[in-house]
Amino acid sequence: MKNGQVEYINIQKISGAEITEANDQVAVEEPLEIQLAYNTAAGRLQKNIAVTMRTPGNDEELAAGFLFTEGIIKDKEAIQEIKQLSFDENRTLVTLHENIQPDLANVSRNFYSTSSCGICGKASIEAIRTISYYKHEEHDLSINASVLYHLQDDLKKQQVVFENTGGLHASVLFSSEGNFIMLREDVGRHNALDKLIGAALVGGELPLSNCILFLSGRASFELVQKAMMAGLKIIAAVGAPSSLAVALAKEAGITLTGFLRSNRFNIYSGEQRIIL
Amino acid sequence: MKNGQVEYINIQKISGAEITEANDQVAVEEPLEIQLAYNTAAGRLQKNIAVTMRTPGNDEELAAGFLFTEGIIKDKEAIQEIKQLSFDENRTLVTLHENIQPDLANVSRNFYSTSSCGICGKASIEAIRTISYYKHEEHDLSINASVLYHLQDDLKKQQVVFENTGGLHASVLFSSEGNFIMLREDVGRHNALDKLIGAALVGGELPLSNCILFLSGRASFELVQKAMMAGLKIIAAVGAPSSLAVALAKEAGITLTGFLRSNRFNIYSGEQRIIL
Repeated sequence: MKNGQVEYINIQKISGAEITEANDQVAVEEPLEIQLAYNTAAGRLQKNIAVTMRTPGNDEELAAGFLFTEGIIKDKEAIQEIKQLSFDENRTLVTLHENIQPDLANVSRNFYSTSSCGICGKASIEAIRTISYYKHEEHDLSINASVLYHLQDDLKKQQVVFENTGGLHASVLFSSEGNFIMLREDVGRHNALDKLIGAALVGGELPLSNCILFLSGRASFELVQKAMMAGLKIIAAVGAPSSLAVALAKEAGITLTGFLRSNRFNIYSGEQRIIL
Repeated sequence: MKNGQVEYINIQKISGAEITEANDQVAVEEPLEIQLAYNTAAGRLQKNIAVTMRTPGNDEELAAGFLFTEGIIKDKEAIQEIKQLSFDENRTLVTLHENIQPDLANVSRNFYSTSSCGICGKASIEAIRTISYYKHEEHDLSINASVLYHLQDDLKKQQVVFENTGGLHASVLFSSEGNFIMLREDVGRHNALDKLIGAALVGGELPLSNCILFLSGRASFELVQKAMMAGLKIIAAVGAPSSLAVALAKEAGITLTGFLRSNRFNIYSGEQRIIL
């Protein structure tokens, strides 16, 4: 956890009828405005395309990941520059290359909402989901169930502290052998995943078809959709999936597991990739 | 839990190297489009103002609560009719009375986003928060700490089953003496609260200044903002608050407690209302 992700505040801890003053950590929540600069027939445009309540840190990755997982840009080559606007730390500007047309149809479809989900305007998966740029691969991966059992222990071993505040969600990338690759945290679960995928995008590591995505909480439709955009094939969530998350995972050929503990988990789709 | 909130699916439960087929419950997640019909100088308009990923059920309350907590309508008198559009169960139409002007400035500010938060366009609380219609009251309420300790037990006693799927958030209303009033559940925490406040709005029970709001999970900025709109003064969350939730609670004079267990909790703001 970095500076800026956590704030110390004075609280009162009540236990029975006892009261104790304490200085405690809370997860920082701040709005981030993502601005996009791009060319149109009418000239250069710069406009706000989203505001998200996020935990500060890795904002460039968040912006890049967001644009990618929402289908607004197709690859990192679309991006000329990403920068924090210096007059305001809560604004990030993504400048696209001159010849790039962002797909802003997705913006009006996806952001017209107040939900924790990627959102949509229609009542069917076909209509609401973004289209993945990655094809199914001939040589698909499979993993041993024991790999999943060890993910949370491995996080501890790596001294990857995820979360002291009880207020952050984590998205973590592991290799198919269960080796830790990368962790991102946020008050918003979709932001944590956008940061992770944004880092992979900027680092030229997409698609993530040989990796395992670990989610510290529940698996919503939106998270499965973002994972699909990054080419991920295996999702291991500590929490429960929703009905639409399961439906999309099945349709997209993604292995979705939930309720992961040290010796058990549930498989909701794509069981062929799990070896017992 | 009602029909339509839960879906049964076939899953595989893995334990060690054992595999068991099972028929298990998942929380239903479906998009709901909220449409608004109202008069303008140019005539009658009907338009989509939000899409949210929600658990079906209480959709009219959700629509009403959403319009109210986002500051689009000021009271239930603004509403002429709320109905599910019969050709599509995932669309709810709210028709306003002829003389009512919805405040749609809030729509563009609030919904231009993909976050789990109510959202905002500016980096300060002043700029992002909606304005509550209720004034501070002279005779403020206070509650005994022991009332908070018993809320979760009371839910069990009332045989209020909140949640078998591990995938739903609950918002619950209690009296200041700790008596159960109402429960609403949803895959989206903001939806659960909008359903609860929508039910109170439609029932003519606002402001809820003598009630306790119990949240099954974390307390975000958005949830505190919605509670403030309903005139709530005491929030008891099982999870952690975010930094901005605490800041808003302090500014709005709301008592915000978190990490509620059967014999302890933390007070983040408004400790004068808690009697030990």
